[in-house]
Amino acid sequence: MHIEKCNIALYISHMEKTNWIGFDLGGTKMLALAFDEKFKELGRSRRKTKANEGMKAGLGRIVETIEETLTEAKVSKESIAGIGIGVPGPLDHREGVIIDAPNLGWKDVPLKKTLAKAFECDVVVVNDVDAGVYGEYSFGAAQGAHCALGVFPGTGIGAGCVYRGQLIQGSVNSCMELGHIPVLPEGPICGCGKRGCLEAVASRLAISAAVAAEAFRGHGPTILRECGTDISNIRSKALAQSIAAGEKAVEDIVRQAARWLGRGVATAMNLFAPDIVVLGGGLVEAMPELYIEEVKKSATAIAMPAYAGMVRFTKAKLGDDATAMGAAAWARAEVRSVS
Amino acid sequence: MHIEKCNIALYISHMEKTNWIGFDLGGTKMLALAFDEKFKELGRSRRKTKANEGMKAGLGRIVETIEETLTEAKVSKESIAGIGIGVPGPLDHREGVIIDAPNLGWKDVPLKKTLAKAFECDVVVVNDVDAGVYGEYSFGAAQGAHCALGVFPGTGIGAGCVYRGQLIQGSVNSCMELGHIPVLPEGPICGCGKRGCLEAVASRLAISAAVAAEAFRGHGPTILRECGTDISNIRSKALAQSIAAGEKAVEDIVRQAARWLGRGVATAMNLFAPDIVVLGGGLVEAMPELYIEEVKKSATAIAMPAYAGMVRFTKAKLGDDATAMGAAAWARAEVRSVS
Repeated sequence: MHIEKCNIALYISHMEKTNWIGFDLGGTKMLALAFDEKFKELGRSRRKTKANEGMKAGLGRIVETIEETLTEAKVSKESIAGIGIGVPGPLDHREGVIIDAPNLGWKDVPLKKTLAKAFECDVVVVNDVDAGVYGEYSFGAAQGAHCALGVFPGTGIGAGCVYRGQLIQGSVNSCMELGHIPVLPEGPICGCGKRGCLEAVASRLAISAAVAAEAFRGHGPTILRECGTDISNIRSKALAQSIAAGEKAVEDIVRQAARWLGRGVATAMNLFAPDIVVLGGGLVEAMPELYIEEVKKSATAIAMPAYAGMVRFTKAKLGDDATAMGAAAWARAEVRSVS
Repeated sequence: MHIEKCNIALYISHMEKTNWIGFDLGGTKMLALAFDEKFKELGRSRRKTKANEGMKAGLGRIVETIEETLTEAKVSKESIAGIGIGVPGPLDHREGVIIDAPNLGWKDVPLKKTLAKAFECDVVVVNDVDAGVYGEYSFGAAQGAHCALGVFPGTGIGAGCVYRGQLIQGSVNSCMELGHIPVLPEGPICGCGKRGCLEAVASRLAISAAVAAEAFRGHGPTILRECGTDISNIRSKALAQSIAAGEKAVEDIVRQAARWLGRGVATAMNLFAPDIVVLGGGLVEAMPELYIEEVKKSATAIAMPAYAGMVRFTKAKLGDDATAMGAAAWARAEVRSVS
């Protein structure tokens, strides 16, 4: 009788651990999503990150945001099979620690320990861009790919790769730093301190700097009127508006940056032979047609013909949910590969 | 009684299939190796490829070479668990066909079908460089790596990557064409028809062309005496001899090519974060210290510090046996993943 009771308890406990939590820790916002075992969304919660209140307060807000989501989803803590959390900056995915998150101002953030203690479940910490690409692979534009390359040009250039269902990661940290591959010897300075990285010629920051100069010269009246010549104000939407208004100087700069991006994509194509390239991020969302056209044209002209002929270029589908969704799915993949 | 007999027969047949054959199909030579279940070498056989006698004759020679190896190894056909064969040129690894092998002059070579018919076992066809890198991962310089990058500069530049025990391959073909990543916009013409590929500035062919010009100018007397100014004669050993004789112009050219190679390696480091980079091939074997020093210096200066700090540069260990050994080991990995 005693044994039977135990078995039933074990059975119930096993049956109950069917929900997955995905979390996106961004510089300004945090987003938690709750899923059932079939990855149907059960609830969501979003808060401001308020990173300036410090790491301890921030960790508290993360826990509260997840608790709020559980309440909304009518999901008990005991039913969580695992939490996946997508984070910026260099991390140690074995230990589940963010080593340094410059845009949060936090260091050595013990995410895995904190969340495992609060929710008593498996916790997987993953780079936010990697999580986004895994999200597109699992639920979005790259489903069924043998090899999916995701590229997200914005202020920087994020990228990730899912190869045969696995995220390509370093043994400790994330990798796929496509934004920092060298593309132009003695090229412009990059945020990383080196010269001629892809990011230095193809990011939104590189575009904005060149556009500000053209606006100063009188070649982008819409930009000058809407944004002035402060590059902080020249965002993707303003670039799209200027191009729509027929400002050729701005269009030339954006197209050239997209061609550089295509060069970086060609490099990755020659190494990975992806069957799908997913493009997303601020610039692509503002100008999807221009970006997909230019990147495709440039990448297929530069990559080896065998790889150029087998790849499909497509726009990301999941938008702001990609990282949280992918983080939850990656947590499931990682937890299952261990158990 | 009947059933028992069957079971015993099945049991024996299963027990006997413990030997693996590795094969390296080169442009001038072919090599077969036979292994026991612990990958102890039991026998080997080497023949000239004689590709000019045609594909049919060539396939016959491959079968004979394997049969010869079996005889030497005292291994029966029935005991072969699988054959792995490393081949040049674009291939279809699902179908086991070499699509085009320019250095053999053969097209649509039905290797898998031919060998499966002759030896009644599983056959795995794999790119020769990939097989070599998998050999180094399984038995040589890259054992235990989370991610091993192999780079082999010679007439061209071969490369392969083993990530978490898996060879990175396209869904149909091989990939990791490091020799054809674009490194210099508007750079010299490459064998692939494009400009500024890594191979166009860092291969032995690129070095030989530059060295021939210097020899013509009187800056490489050893080269001029030993090889003349015909680039076909300027091989890796002659380059090493010239450098040993103190010919600075030649040394400068080789070091610059090695630095370009380091730039290509840095690109792969930023994407894969390998923990081991294995260098091999003609140039490295002729000048191992120069190559490892220059490639390491250049790659670690260009790659992101987080990746530069975790990688070890080392020389390939298996020499001419790498491809055949790796092909056999990869056949085992592939056959086991299916069964």
